[in-house]
Amino acid sequence: MKIDIDIMRHSCAHLVAAAVAELYPKAKFGVGPVVENGFYYDIDFGVAINEEDLQKIEDKARELQKKNLEFSHQEVPLDKAIELFEKNGQTYKVELLNDLKTKGTTKVKDEELAQVVESVDKVTLYQTGKFIDLCRGPHLKTTKDIGVFKLNKLAGAYWRGKSENPQLTRIYGLCFAKQKELDDYLTLLAEAEKRDHRKLGKELDLYHIDDMVGLGLPLWHPKGAIMWRVIEDFWYKHHLLNGYELVRTPHIGNKILWETSGHWGFYNESMYPPLEVGQTLKENQDRQEVKESEQYLLKPMNCPFHVQVFKNRLYSYRELPLRWAECGTVYRYEKKGQLSGLTRVRGFTQDDAHIICRKDQVEEELKRVIDFILFIYKSFGFNLEDVQVFLSLRDPKDKEKYVGSDEGWELTESVLRKVAKEKKLKFSEEKGEAAFYGPKLDFKIKDCLGRLWQCSTLQFDFNLPERFDMNFVNNKGEQERPYMLHRALFGSFERFIGLLIEHYAGAVPVWFAPTQIMLVPVSEKHVEGARKIKQELFELGIRVDSDEADETLGNKVRKAVKQKIPYIIVIGDKELAGEDWMIRIRGIEKQEKMSKEKFIKRILEEIKDRK
Amino acid sequence: MKIDIDIMRHSCAHLVAAAVAELYPKAKFGVGPVVENGFYYDIDFGVAINEEDLQKIEDKARELQKKNLEFSHQEVPLDKAIELFEKNGQTYKVELLNDLKTKGTTKVKDEELAQVVESVDKVTLYQTGKFIDLCRGPHLKTTKDIGVFKLNKLAGAYWRGKSENPQLTRIYGLCFAKQKELDDYLTLLAEAEKRDHRKLGKELDLYHIDDMVGLGLPLWHPKGAIMWRVIEDFWYKHHLLNGYELVRTPHIGNKILWETSGHWGFYNESMYPPLEVGQTLKENQDRQEVKESEQYLLKPMNCPFHVQVFKNRLYSYRELPLRWAECGTVYRYEKKGQLSGLTRVRGFTQDDAHIICRKDQVEEELKRVIDFILFIYKSFGFNLEDVQVFLSLRDPKDKEKYVGSDEGWELTESVLRKVAKEKKLKFSEEKGEAAFYGPKLDFKIKDCLGRLWQCSTLQFDFNLPERFDMNFVNNKGEQERPYMLHRALFGSFERFIGLLIEHYAGAVPVWFAPTQIMLVPVSEKHVEGARKIKQELFELGIRVDSDEADETLGNKVRKAVKQKIPYIIVIGDKELAGEDWMIRIRGIEKQEKMSKEKFIKRILEEIKDRK
Repeated sequence: MKIDIDIMRHSCAHLVAAAVAELYPKAKFGVGPVVENGFYYDIDFGVAINEEDLQKIEDKARELQKKNLEFSHQEVPLDKAIELFEKNGQTYKVELLNDLKTKGTTKVKDEELAQVVESVDKVTLYQTGKFIDLCRGPHLKTTKDIGVFKLNKLAGAYWRGKSENPQLTRIYGLCFAKQKELDDYLTLLAEAEKRDHRKLGKELDLYHIDDMVGLGLPLWHPKGAIMWRVIEDFWYKHHLLNGYELVRTPHIGNKILWETSGHWGFYNESMYPPLEVGQTLKENQDRQEVKESEQYLLKPMNCPFHVQVFKNRLYSYRELPLRWAECGTVYRYEKKGQLSGLTRVRGFTQDDAHIICRKDQVEEELKRVIDFILFIYKSFGFNLEDVQVFLSLRDPKDKEKYVGSDEGWELTESVLRKVAKEKKLKFSEEKGEAAFYGPKLDFKIKDCLGRLWQCSTLQFDFNLPERFDMNFVNNKGEQERPYMLHRALFGSFERFIGLLIEHYAGAVPVWFAPTQIMLVPVSEKHVEGARKIKQELFELGIRVDSDEADETLGNKVRKAVKQKIPYIIVIGDKELAGEDWMIRIRGIEKQEKMSKEKFIKRILEEIKDRK
Repeated sequence: MKIDIDIMRHSCAHLVAAAVAELYPKAKFGVGPVVENGFYYDIDFGVAINEEDLQKIEDKARELQKKNLEFSHQEVPLDKAIELFEKNGQTYKVELLNDLKTKGTTKVKDEELAQVVESVDKVTLYQTGKFIDLCRGPHLKTTKDIGVFKLNKLAGAYWRGKSENPQLTRIYGLCFAKQKELDDYLTLLAEAEKRDHRKLGKELDLYHIDDMVGLGLPLWHPKGAIMWRVIEDFWYKHHLLNGYELVRTPHIGNKILWETSGHWGFYNESMYPPLEVGQTLKENQDRQEVKESEQYLLKPMNCPFHVQVFKNRLYSYRELPLRWAECGTVYRYEKKGQLSGLTRVRGFTQDDAHIICRKDQVEEELKRVIDFILFIYKSFGFNLEDVQVFLSLRDPKDKEKYVGSDEGWELTESVLRKVAKEKKLKFSEEKGEAAFYGPKLDFKIKDCLGRLWQCSTLQFDFNLPERFDMNFVNNKGEQERPYMLHRALFGSFERFIGLLIEHYAGAVPVWFAPTQIMLVPVSEKHVEGARKIKQELFELGIRVDSDEADETLGNKVRKAVKQKIPYIIVIGDKELAGEDWMIRIRGIEKQEKMSKEKFIKRILEEIKDRK
């Protein structure tokens, strides 16, 4: 079934290319692989293409489809194929074929290869209408076997993904077997677009990413920062209730920390470069021996700092487990092209903690963390059926990617598996997804559109304690090596807030909504009264605002609705006179009549119960 | 009066040098200036000197003092002086004199010059016993006129402060007119040592500074981090109550931000060097044009980020004033020698806020900040009589140190002066102490030993809005430049906590004490009961611990007393049976008998009332 739909999508790409060949006889074709839900084709049109042109291409493709064209094919020698495409001016195809000829298949990308031939020896030509393509196939028999399709997007793409090459036009198409599948997918796309946290982040004035500040470094506006603060407050409170203590560490540290931990060796491509400080060259020249200057790194993770806190004094076995939590902002130099809104950033705050414990405490601590993770998800309104768990293991065939002994890996992997089973988690195992220092349980949340978001991680580390020579005094008075668990519940505040925004389409629950109530004074003469109510509610700990703008009532209400504020209350003569209030409850058409006291009770309970 | 005591201290330095010359005939003398409360003398003894030797030198000096030696003097030509000191092997004095001869007085440090001569032409020799020094004088008549003195410290010091020079031994002496003055000062010193936050920070397990992490970068241990968190919580709560909103910004940003603000130009010596990121060289070589790589800086202050949040959309005059607060951790590369505990660090958290307002709002906003500052001081138990205020102005003779027009400076300085007067602050004016972008009010707190600590700052900035082209829409629909106030109430969390530790000698008020109650189970069989009480108190929001160590009762109580825990409660049969508790209240000898309920009520009220 999976192959069938891929064949259909691939055939559809050829159909669209055939339509382009009819409309733009000089068009030169790049590659056109199958992607999720459809396909794309990179084409050098020689002219600029707009949305209207795209529609014309789609129309032409439908016209050709109705002609019920065949996907005919023939085998030809490589040199013959090169000759043919040279004659047709298809220079990109010629380049691919020449690469194949001189360098073999390994130098050609998979998506290019899929488009072209199975091997150097076997070259197949597929023809659809006027369009001839090199293609390993297979294809459908005729164009009428293609289900439904739609060309949905234009984009630019460098030939072979290199910015020094010409830019081609990429046509994206969706293709499904049935109309309902396409419709459902288009609905999902539209819904996802409405919920996009980058769009809502702007509309709700939560944050922005600033060209002058730098890519991947969000600046949180007042509405976003208060949401963060409420979530952080909740996080701290429950960490303290769950027996965690807090630590607090800097954002930079000597490079030697990450050389010791192994991060510098295994991870430095994702780190910002070192800061070189210390003695200046001039000072060095004055001295007989030249001292090495110091190198500091922006922390990509918090672990080495927590280790140094532990090593500052010798702990007794009675004091273990130590559970040390920190919302620590870390910096990682992600590639520009991978950055996206709050989900892929260069600076983000891990809701981190390290648990340092004895061997006999490991299982109990792992279970406690799992319970805590599930509690957190429930608190933010997620269903536990929508949580997917992955046991990330070492790839035993690729041992140089990891530190530590085989026994260590086998032990920690089997303990994680055992605990996950005992906690009745439904999990799948993923080889090669472990951290370089140990295996982990990764938790992903399915949002209301069915998309998976990486959230919590629970990692079992037997290597850092070794590398940093960590010890506690055991009950025999001897020094013993502790175990260490790394865990983050949200994963990162940024991504988790991004998930919340999309999951709730910005209409987040009352308890962490930036503004919980908007008061709308009917006219200038009600402004003062609304201010008094605002102050009264504010002193009860409610986040309330009053819209004093010189605009119509309707306009002010519409603005508040667009801001997705849970409660909107118009304040006029009656409301100020002590009569019942008419409450506009978010998402409910009909206003609800309620006494002020009853409403206050209701909202305070919602905040308390995290609704 | 001031000169008299300085002369006495200077004469005392000669007396001590004379004692050294008697005991160590081969000693070579560096310089010996007057410092606060006494003097020092840098001497090359040729041998190592310890505390015992120091006592012997002091004894010898007293012996000489009793001989009532004269401070006799004679003028000699410079060359004659050089010859004399060469003969005596006083190579350091010879070096100074040669420097004077060849380079003039400007190349010689003040403290060296004071020691030597008034000018190149006039060289005076002072003799006391066997000790002859080059000295501009004046001195007392005889050694009996010296009041009381005490040699109190040995240290190493590089000759002329340069690490490539030989290290001399520095003898520190205290010298006062009267015995009582010396005694008082010694008491103060002892008290200050007991209260030293570096010492208490270790004893109370609050934080440490780690060689492996880096100088000036404190790591906060659980007890310190919880104290921080409680203070931060209080800070956030009252900022929200005072009409502030929160923002949240990264720790790095493009260098262009600080070039625009002027910090890079005026301040870059105190900043960490730039992080060079962007395209690697290899990538560049592939391309025809070489793009400039990006430079990021660790933020030394938060202002440019808050400006960029403001500039993200256009605000209306109705929305002003904006009060945006952030506990932002900043990094400044202070010189190694200036680092000290929590008071001078390289990474610290400013309790920062920027107020962006219209001209007609400036005075009101300044007054609100002043009220807020004084509220904060009271909340932490300081007397407002112990607050000293300084109006820091531009030095009009040194204009290149500042940005902005004369009118701008005159206006902002006079507004600050007016507001300070209207708020009845007792303040002194300090020329040359303004920030480069505007004048400010600096608030210092006198601690219980009478030492001043820099805390709050309130700065009036008319330059950043200009440099960043900040605008709002005024009531005529035109764009207008806002004013900007920078303010920090604690100044830095690190220094403020350092002040609190020293002011309270570690016995901080209950409301932010890391552990508020220590339960001490009498024996193993009371451990379980103590745990239940602990859980009960903990759920009421009290920070409580139970000491389950296998030690004697007395030992556990002593440990808790040393930890300066406000309440210590021994838990035995009676306490578990519901009888009244015996409460050891910090600082009170006699235990207080109280029912559990009454005690809980008491401590919860103390926490609420910030006692």
